[in-house]
Amino acid sequence: MKDISFRIINVDGKARHGEFITTHGVVKTPAFMPVGTAGFVRSTTPRDIKETGTEVLLANTYHLSLGERLFLVKYMGGLHKFMGWDQTILTDSGGFQVFSLPGRQISNDGVVFMYEENGEKITLTPEKSMEIQRDLGADIVMAFDECVEYPAPYEYVKSAANRTSLWAERCLQVPLNDHQFLFGIIQGGTFQDLRYKSAASITKLGFDGYAIGGVSVGEGHELMCQAIRHTEYLLPEDKPRYLMGVGLPEDILASVELGIDMFDCVIPTRYGRSGTFFTRTGKIRVQDKTYRKDRYPVDTKCTCYTCRNYSRMVLRYLFFTGDPLAGTLATIHNVTYYQDLMADIRTAIDQGRFASFREECLAGYNKKKLRHEKKMGLK
Amino acid sequence: MKDISFRIINVDGKARHGEFITTHGVVKTPAFMPVGTAGFVRSTTPRDIKETGTEVLLANTYHLSLGERLFLVKYMGGLHKFMGWDQTILTDSGGFQVFSLPGRQISNDGVVFMYEENGEKITLTPEKSMEIQRDLGADIVMAFDECVEYPAPYEYVKSAANRTSLWAERCLQVPLNDHQFLFGIIQGGTFQDLRYKSAASITKLGFDGYAIGGVSVGEGHELMCQAIRHTEYLLPEDKPRYLMGVGLPEDILASVELGIDMFDCVIPTRYGRSGTFFTRTGKIRVQDKTYRKDRYPVDTKCTCYTCRNYSRMVLRYLFFTGDPLAGTLATIHNVTYYQDLMADIRTAIDQGRFASFREECLAGYNKKKLRHEKKMGLK
Repeated sequence: MKDISFRIINVDGKARHGEFITTHGVVKTPAFMPVGTAGFVRSTTPRDIKETGTEVLLANTYHLSLGERLFLVKYMGGLHKFMGWDQTILTDSGGFQVFSLPGRQISNDGVVFMYEENGEKITLTPEKSMEIQRDLGADIVMAFDECVEYPAPYEYVKSAANRTSLWAERCLQVPLNDHQFLFGIIQGGTFQDLRYKSAASITKLGFDGYAIGGVSVGEGHELMCQAIRHTEYLLPEDKPRYLMGVGLPEDILASVELGIDMFDCVIPTRYGRSGTFFTRTGKIRVQDKTYRKDRYPVDTKCTCYTCRNYSRMVLRYLFFTGDPLAGTLATIHNVTYYQDLMADIRTAIDQGRFASFREECLAGYNKKKLRHEKKMGLK
Repeated sequence: MKDISFRIINVDGKARHGEFITTHGVVKTPAFMPVGTAGFVRSTTPRDIKETGTEVLLANTYHLSLGERLFLVKYMGGLHKFMGWDQTILTDSGGFQVFSLPGRQISNDGVVFMYEENGEKITLTPEKSMEIQRDLGADIVMAFDECVEYPAPYEYVKSAANRTSLWAERCLQVPLNDHQFLFGIIQGGTFQDLRYKSAASITKLGFDGYAIGGVSVGEGHELMCQAIRHTEYLLPEDKPRYLMGVGLPEDILASVELGIDMFDCVIPTRYGRSGTFFTRTGKIRVQDKTYRKDRYPVDTKCTCYTCRNYSRMVLRYLFFTGDPLAGTLATIHNVTYYQDLMADIRTAIDQGRFASFREECLAGYNKKKLRHEKKMGLK
């Protein structure tokens, strides 16, 4: 395993504008990764995703390893060929999905779970997760960790963090492909001392990048920020820092300010498919009657294919006709919105005005909400 | 109403390579029109459809006029803006859908039918159909005709053909937009004398183009060809000829040979969404187990986005994961297959070898079928 080539281009406070290079291209950070659960970002062609400015995709190891899927991906020559995606891919460890299955049993060895489709008992171990991810062939693979829900008792979070460290060591023993980087994951929930211990032990092992796990599990914005604060200063500055499963634009802005470089989340794609569009002046639900005769694009400042060609009223119409194209156009827009946000963040860092950019951005984003609250006499 | 600018570039036997020009571009004939039932070709962005080589789309007047839809299309400034499609559009008259509704009542005035969603009684007349199509704003609009199913008794087909002629006259009285062309429709089912009478009376009225209707209603390939033979020689040579609702590649090849210039059909898109792909060596159903480990593109001679990026096994996988992207990729391929076929047809006509092209094409297309039949001892 070679070191990841990561460099920081500019900093502004703790916020970092950087880039790293994989065999499949340059990834500018802070970076947002859309999620392709079964490899593909649902309803949307990879070339449409590429056009949004996306440089790295996340694919779920769990969904890609079930049944004969792993065999198929290997047989096609790996995820890049399988998905028709020639840029960087990151795979998660599979743990997050497995831990949420009913009846899974965790031991120091690994996790035993039941395969939903045929009831087959499967054991996922750190070694197994590494082997699967090696076969999938993503550019970045994640160590196998134990992610704990929120809230959880101190003792439980502690044992999960300890186990995550043990497993991290075992993950490092498994040889990967030459082009693959391995990121370690820090646990510890919302407990400062556990975050400290986890960060200390994981960083000591030496990974190509570090992820803060165990967030985006229901703890809310404030506790998420706290978890970053309790961890970030312990992470080596010369490696990318990835906040797993986050999040909403306001979460991303706060996290970048605290020094995070990478994000992934299903929100832009999942919200999009149900008709919720992100805009520079807040979220809108395009099925609302208010958009029935609205000839404006979803976001007048957006230059995506959807906004260049369709008004809110036509998108509303498409959702009501049940055409999957509605989900496609929403995915294109929402992912573009996220990638534009990341690009604006990087520019603001370069210009040393990230703090004020964040405020302006949130003020615009919350405009509708504030107007609504004022009208209701709430503010 | 101005005359359509149609010119014939080359003929080969009865087969014609031509082109006509609308405000929204040149349409090379023989032309195939994919169908956008509610305006949009399901699951697929208009730019992906454009890339297939499609120069004209068909949109269904019936689906676009229900409820408040017509108002919405008008309010957006017409179908082109509504659909985000800047090329030529043809709308049907709405009759075909209405005649297949249960309980519709036909009189010389028009058709009374019940709107499925709220039980509202609606009367569709020739005048009403023209007004709706004027508001939709397609480049080519179709006269309101009475389409009869197959088989149907002589007297019934006769009265429908007579009514179609009366209605055609009324359609011509309704002013359209300057950019719109009006095509007349010839009925008469499978009866030679009725086709003759219908063609004589419709062509006498003077339209911008002529359609053969009442085909693709279950009469089969032979009777369809017969209906063309009974009609085609009566149509003016200097106007485009459109065979409505046809069809499979073998139907198109036979019809071009008999002098047809335009086609529309839901087959490539509808088949595609269910996993049936057209190839130069026949149709394949990609869910079949035989494609489980098939790393070849659907059609090795196809250059569409789908064939450039995905193997049969990956497409099979996508259909099994239930991702609408499967339908998108299938639509892209199948429509490309049809447009490539039309382009090859035009080239063959230019080179005076249409008859042999048709044979080669069918031989290739039926190869799999023949091999299968030989194996089964059927041939």
